[in-house]
Formats: sequence, C-alpha cells, structure tokens
Amino acid sequence: MPNPAANAPLLVRFALGQEGNWATTHLATLIGETLAHGPRLCMSIDAVPGSPVWELRGVVSSLRYTTRAEAMELLARSEGLGRPASSRAVLIPIRKSPAWWALAQDERRAIYEEQSRHTSIGMKYLPHIARRLHHSRDLGEAFDFLTWFEFAPEHEPEFDSLLGELRASKEWTYVDREVEFRFDRIAA
Amino acid sequence: MPNPAANAPLLVRFALGQEGNWATTHLATLIGETLAHGPRLCMSIDAVPGSPVWELRGVVSSLRYTTRAEAMELLARSEGLGRPASSRAVLIPIRKSPAWWALAQDERRAIYEEQSRHTSIGMKYLPHIARRLHHSRDLGEAFDFLTWFEFAPEHEPEFDSLLGELRASKEWTYVDREVEFRFDRIAA
Repeated sequence: MPNPAANAPLLVRFALGQEGNWATTHLATLIGETLAHGPRLCMSIDAVPGSPVWELRGVVSSLRYTTRAEAMELLARSEGLGRPASSRAVLIPIRKSPAWWALAQDERRAIYEEQSRHTSIGMKYLPHIARRLHHSRDLGEAFDFLTWFEFAPEHEPEFDSLLGELRASKEWTYVDREVEFRFDRIAA
Repeated sequence: MPNPAANAPLLVRFALGQEGNWATTHLATLIGETLAHGPRLCMSIDAVPGSPVWELRGVVSSLRYTTRAEAMELLARSEGLGRPASSRAVLIPIRKSPAWWALAQDERRAIYEEQSRHTSIGMKYLPHIARRLHHSRDLGEAFDFLTWFEFAPEHEPEFDSLLGELRASKEWTYVDREVEFRFDRIAA
C-alpha cells in the first residue's frame, strides 16, 4: 500500500514573512501564547528564503494511532494536497500537555479515537478537506504537531464544522497551545 | 507516574572518536553496512567535543507500543542508567525496512509484542540489563533507533541471551541495518 512516509520521513518547513505562495487572511489564537503575524506563508522542503517572522518545522512520518483498516479507508477517500480548486489553506500548530505525553500508547489511542473519534471525524470531511500532519515534538520545536489543511473556498463551512467537532472532543482537553492561520493561494 | 519523556524529549548524542568515558572493546556488524571503529565513545546531551569519527543522534521520547500495564511493570522493575556496578555498556543502532514503516500502528504493535514479545523479553532481564531507547528516524538520521544498554560485567551472558531472543523474533526480519558496539567504562 502506498505510504509517503514509508521510505524516509519528509521534513517540511513553514515560514511566515514576506515570501511564499499563500497570503495570510486570518490569525486566531485559541489556547496559550500566540504567534507573530505576517503577510505570506512559504511551505517548503528546502531552506526558506528571506528572513521569516517565524519558521516551524515538522516531519511527515509514520502515523501513531491509525490502524490498517482506518489507513485503507483514508487512502480510498483522500485526494491529496495541491488540487487546483484548493485555493484556501489553514495551518494549525498545536502543543499537547505534559499529562498527554505521560499517557501510555493504549491510553492515548483510546482518547484519540475511541473517545474523541479523531480519525472518524476527519474521514467524514474527505475528500473536500485535505489534510497533512507533521510531527514536530521530537525535533525540539515549540509545537508538537503542525496540521495543514487545503480545500476549495465553498467548503470552508465544512472545514469549520470539522474544527468544531475536534475542539469539542476529550482529546482537545490535552491541547495547551493552539494557533490558527488561514491563507488564500496567490495566483501564479 | 514519572515519565522522563513527558515534559520534553531529550536529545542524546553518541560520538565515537578520541573522547569520552567509554572505551570500545568490540564492534560487530550484524546486518547491512558497518560503522567506523574508534577507541572512545562520548554520550552527551551537549555538543560533543573534538572531531568524532561519527555522531549519531536520537531522542528519548514517548514510547510508541507500550501499554499502561507494561509501562507500570517496566517502571517497577527498572533501576535506570548510571548504576556504579554498570561498567559495561552496549550501543546498538538499528534501521528498519520500508516494509516495516509501511505497516499501520496495529500491525506494528502486533509484530512488536504479540508475535515478538519485545517488551516481555526486555522485562525478563530487568533490573540487571538497563536499557534506554532513542528515536532517530524523524531526525533524518542514518538509523531509526539507538538502544543503549548498561549492566555489570557478570551479567553479560544474560545480555547475550536477551539479544539472541530479540534477533530470533519476527520483528527482527524487518531490521535491515544493525551494528553493535560494546564498551567498558573508564575509571574517573
């Protein structure tokens, strides 16, 4: 089965500043300390240009809670990033609390899926809301995860429903920092 | 429950060269390409001194397969690193195959524990054989994991049994590079 993380984890850099193909339209600070604002976002696997206001790094790596059955269903329903109609994107960096990280694998999985339906909620909004998860915690970054979403503007209400469902879940009681940036793609 | 990885992942550097408190006594290449030899190992959380032959980095992070019940039993039986009698140490860098990383979480857990008894095997040799796992894959390192073992010289036969059991397991059919270094602590 195709798995982009099977060969080597992909390091992705997100940099906010004067450069990049995404224009910032919205910044919201949900939990904890905010991040600085800036007009453009550059998402790159190479060194980022210029002097960004901030740079966040994350790795597209093996999924830590997804079963084979879930992975097959996600794959069947997903269309991936970079679709021409997906001119809107959202970056949500989150950090989870020490209490979350003190849990064992079975406890984290139970909260993540059996109690919070994280994978199932994301599945409902496929293929309209495409998503890629980046792991940052082991890199010593300020956030634990960076999630990147892409969708067509007419699907933004669905995206807002997805966020509302996740933020109301038990899993989110373990989130201790969350910031949200929305962007419009700049025509090439 | 105490969990050293709950607050922040700890980045640990292993450097082989002319510096360090551990004298190399043995190098074995089990699977795949070897690593260069050198007389001393430095294990440090700071930048390593001198010009090492190689440096490998890994993060002590959340355990990916360990249940709460297993974590409690490991904690109860463990004595940790740095015991005065533990004058012998072993560093085993391993890399797992793309086939392993293409598996989903439930498939990896099933091979790791239900079929290979990885945690149970390690448990049998506690507290004599102390162990610390470092995750390297998401850092873009040449190996996926670095395991560090410490024990008193009279327990080396037990350590060899532990290695024999793990290397005979189904999990090890997914290991595609493995090198083993043994060390004696240098008296301060």
